[in-house]
Amino acid sequence: MRAGEWNDPRNASAAQDSAAPSVIARSSALLGAFGPGDHTLGVSELARRTGLAKSTVHRLARELTAHGLLERDGGGLRLGLRLFELGQLVRRRQSLREAAWPFMTDLCTATGATAQLAVLDGTEVVYLEILVGSDAPDLPSRVGGRLPAHATAVGKAILAFSPAVAVDEVLRGGLVRLSSRTIVTPGRLRRELATIREAGMAYDREESGLGIVCAAVPVIGPEGTAVAALSVSGWSGRLRLPRIAAAVHTAGLALSRSHAAGPG
Amino acid sequence: MRAGEWNDPRNASAAQDSAAPSVIARSSALLGAFGPGDHTLGVSELARRTGLAKSTVHRLARELTAHGLLERDGGGLRLGLRLFELGQLVRRRQSLREAAWPFMTDLCTATGATAQLAVLDGTEVVYLEILVGSDAPDLPSRVGGRLPAHATAVGKAILAFSPAVAVDEVLRGGLVRLSSRTIVTPGRLRRELATIREAGMAYDREESGLGIVCAAVPVIGPEGTAVAALSVSGWSGRLRLPRIAAAVHTAGLALSRSHAAGPG
Repeated sequence: MRAGEWNDPRNASAAQDSAAPSVIARSSALLGAFGPGDHTLGVSELARRTGLAKSTVHRLARELTAHGLLERDGGGLRLGLRLFELGQLVRRRQSLREAAWPFMTDLCTATGATAQLAVLDGTEVVYLEILVGSDAPDLPSRVGGRLPAHATAVGKAILAFSPAVAVDEVLRGGLVRLSSRTIVTPGRLRRELATIREAGMAYDREESGLGIVCAAVPVIGPEGTAVAALSVSGWSGRLRLPRIAAAVHTAGLALSRSHAAGPG
Repeated sequence: MRAGEWNDPRNASAAQDSAAPSVIARSSALLGAFGPGDHTLGVSELARRTGLAKSTVHRLARELTAHGLLERDGGGLRLGLRLFELGQLVRRRQSLREAAWPFMTDLCTATGATAQLAVLDGTEVVYLEILVGSDAPDLPSRVGGRLPAHATAVGKAILAFSPAVAVDEVLRGGLVRLSSRTIVTPGRLRRELATIREAGMAYDREESGLGIVCAAVPVIGPEGTAVAALSVSGWSGRLRLPRIAAAVHTAGLALSRSHAAGPG
């Protein structure tokens, strides 16, 4: 990413630099208070989760509701349909998903396993698309959800083909353990990434969860670095990684080629 | 929807009622400036589209970027990945999609046509999910996109099973024409909705676009009104509506039953 006018310190004085969080920061906290399991949340609960005063939650919620970003539901609030509409326009998701979809359906049909598409965001991967296979276990991932990059095949595939700063950031963040097999030491992760760079493929051998294995390939963008990763996941006892590796690898190369041609 | 404290005029004084648009209103306008075809937009273009001063766009964009709602891309801006994440948590979409998915894949497989799931929002329908069939034309809809309710089978199916105020709002909004067959007179729309109520099904006979036909059923919620609609669309010359009607109807009844059992 190029450094632009956005980071220019000369512009900093124009920002709302007061000690109190800005309206945008508070609105963002309010929207971010909703988790995957939350149906509706009341004002008191939102105040508790965000640390905002109830009167502030009331005032912000009324405005966010007027713009469709929240919706009233009985006595509580839920995320608004407009967020879904805006989310569907997110370009990084849109163009990658369109390019990846046919490869994902092919992989899903050919293996009976689950095909996934993910991008890196800081130290985590965000899943853009998941196609659940006919013979596949429940996975810890969900569309729009996050997992620590170092603990997943998609994350390792992207990191292996990312600038060194991306790997440094992950190591600085600390390597949390998701299963007894998660790589949690910096040295081992660096060696693993070197192996992945050489092979062009990454494996998750029950590192994101016991009983689950995964093979992933990076999707290489026009700049020669990974912009995403494509993977196939299944039961550790049933999905033979060496057997599906070539299929996943081929799909990744084709996707990189087709995606590099279109807009990023 | 129950009237709540949100509409209480006693709370109105707490709102930011100044003549100038609020930070949330301006941020909402900025996010809303991006359309389906936009890759990235520059500050000047965003200022032009929103009517905001360039300095305001700069300041808001910097803050929205800090919270992941926008992303810098070269010299321009694009909608941020966080909007995609938040959009995936929108409950109205989540629970309906999960309930509808198996029925949609069945309809798609059985007919080769395209299965769609949509909800009403004001005078328009918003598409929550689209499963493109193997023998289906390009449709004017897209996931997260909108079409006028009166011109689509899903919209008419929902309106026929909605409170009268919903129909009144659509008529007040004016019946725009999408094709030479769109219903554009209030009297004809009211008669059409009465027919749909009786049949439990709605048809789009090239009303949303020439060459396309569609059969839709309402998804009835716990309150006895439509919360969504499920449809099958295909080529007007090839998709025989009477032949698929029973399949769509059956799927809609089953979906209404299963959805009424879960949380709205």
